[in-house]
Amino acid sequence: MSRDDDKRWVYEEQPFLRMGYPLGKVLFDGQSPFQKVAIYETASHGRMLFSDGMVMMSERDEFVYHEMIAHVPLFVHPNPRQVLVIGGGDGGTAREVMRHPSVERCVMVEIDQLVIGACKAHIWVTAQAFYNNKMELHVEDRLTFVADAAADQFDVVIVDATEPVGPATSLFGEGFYRDLQRVLTADGIVVSPGASAFYHAEQQAGLVSVLAKVFPVRSLYNFTNLTSPGGLWSFTFASNGRHPLRDFDAERVAKSGLSFQYYTPEIHRAAFALPQFQRDRLDGLLTD
Amino acid sequence: MSRDDDKRWVYEEQPFLRMGYPLGKVLFDGQSPFQKVAIYETASHGRMLFSDGMVMMSERDEFVYHEMIAHVPLFVHPNPRQVLVIGGGDGGTAREVMRHPSVERCVMVEIDQLVIGACKAHIWVTAQAFYNNKMELHVEDRLTFVADAAADQFDVVIVDATEPVGPATSLFGEGFYRDLQRVLTADGIVVSPGASAFYHAEQQAGLVSVLAKVFPVRSLYNFTNLTSPGGLWSFTFASNGRHPLRDFDAERVAKSGLSFQYYTPEIHRAAFALPQFQRDRLDGLLTD
Repeated sequence: MSRDDDKRWVYEEQPFLRMGYPLGKVLFDGQSPFQKVAIYETASHGRMLFSDGMVMMSERDEFVYHEMIAHVPLFVHPNPRQVLVIGGGDGGTAREVMRHPSVERCVMVEIDQLVIGACKAHIWVTAQAFYNNKMELHVEDRLTFVADAAADQFDVVIVDATEPVGPATSLFGEGFYRDLQRVLTADGIVVSPGASAFYHAEQQAGLVSVLAKVFPVRSLYNFTNLTSPGGLWSFTFASNGRHPLRDFDAERVAKSGLSFQYYTPEIHRAAFALPQFQRDRLDGLLTD
Repeated sequence: MSRDDDKRWVYEEQPFLRMGYPLGKVLFDGQSPFQKVAIYETASHGRMLFSDGMVMMSERDEFVYHEMIAHVPLFVHPNPRQVLVIGGGDGGTAREVMRHPSVERCVMVEIDQLVIGACKAHIWVTAQAFYNNKMELHVEDRLTFVADAAADQFDVVIVDATEPVGPATSLFGEGFYRDLQRVLTADGIVVSPGASAFYHAEQQAGLVSVLAKVFPVRSLYNFTNLTSPGGLWSFTFASNGRHPLRDFDAERVAKSGLSFQYYTPEIHRAAFALPQFQRDRLDGLLTD
């Protein structure tokens, strides 16, 4: 959020950290029933999307988050065709999902039309996804959609709610993950944002505890971008059986013909090597 | 640096990013011939050391940087006994070096007595190193020390100058690394901070280019902490022959009896998996 005393910088303000970016101009500023949405042009990070004062993405580093949330599960599943994205209103996750030739349909459920509209108007690098023929967009409540959806239809589910606080809090409960398990196929995989190993240790352990009640395979992998406070952030990986490393075929990455800015087969494997302090906190909750 | 309009936060201000920390109190504020040195108590990151307004370390995350700069080379060298640390005035790097039972002597050359004194007074978690019997401290010019030092005496050299700008700029030239090669033993290894893959791409490539003129083996490995802008930071690894992965014996880590907060054998290997954009920029400069 910009502060009155200094109009040239825009800040994300957390109790433990402030991160400020050099502000060019305000491209969008609106309020939906769900959140305050703002898009700023910055001198150092391109266009940046804020939700309730928290950075959701920047043009400069969005590829890190979006490649890691999408390609890790999509290269572990043997043949992903039907994919569900929960949230992800900027379009970046769906964009990466739909690059896979095997993907026939990407169902995206985003509760807030305001985010979609703002990104369509101002952040083409991700919002281009909304013009892809594989996209099936539902603007509606995410919990209701999943509760009502038919069973056994999705190969991969990606929960793209970037913060374990705010409008996405309900996306971290056991009931939600039981619904996701129901809509997944037998080989199915679900990936969710796991927040910061440093700043959100309790939320991270809490989410993995919920997954441990529902899924036989639980794992966690890390990435580093520029705009998530603390740098080292995690995604959770859960499935009924497929393993993120033992069922990963690095040759499929090369054969896919896709190119990446962050993701590589080596990065895929390396991301699951957790620092000792993070391993200690999740002891017994993760599968080997 | 604190700003007049808001005394309750202390900021590192870069042209591309500001990072602010909730300020408790100012523990130390001084000016040496080389830099402005300040130590702040913060509510979220413990005590923090600043040099010319840039964060050098915090009590909360210093273990990441110090474990990764020290243990990667010390577990690749077969029997490190004599170690040289260039800079590192807070003591944290030397602390980790001296934990290795094989290390007999840690020679540390720090130009600025003010940093050492301030840390001894206020940051015991790292400055405890100055009271270790293995420590041989030289407060003098780092370039002169290395130029005058006898050849073939150090198994590992660690350059702990955290920024490729400011008082440490001269530690990034070819002449300096030729001197380091001379003081290294045949099995010797030199590690240096390589800055941010995102924000300092040119400096990173520049340092690796210098190493490529001097050392047959050059590599780069990454870590993520809380207080380095951009999260993803690198160390360079260079040697006359020893390879950071092929000559790494994971069993030695377990046998050492040492415990760590960040470092593990898996983290050691994972750290050398570079994101695609970083690999592309260093193409041809790094050895396989």
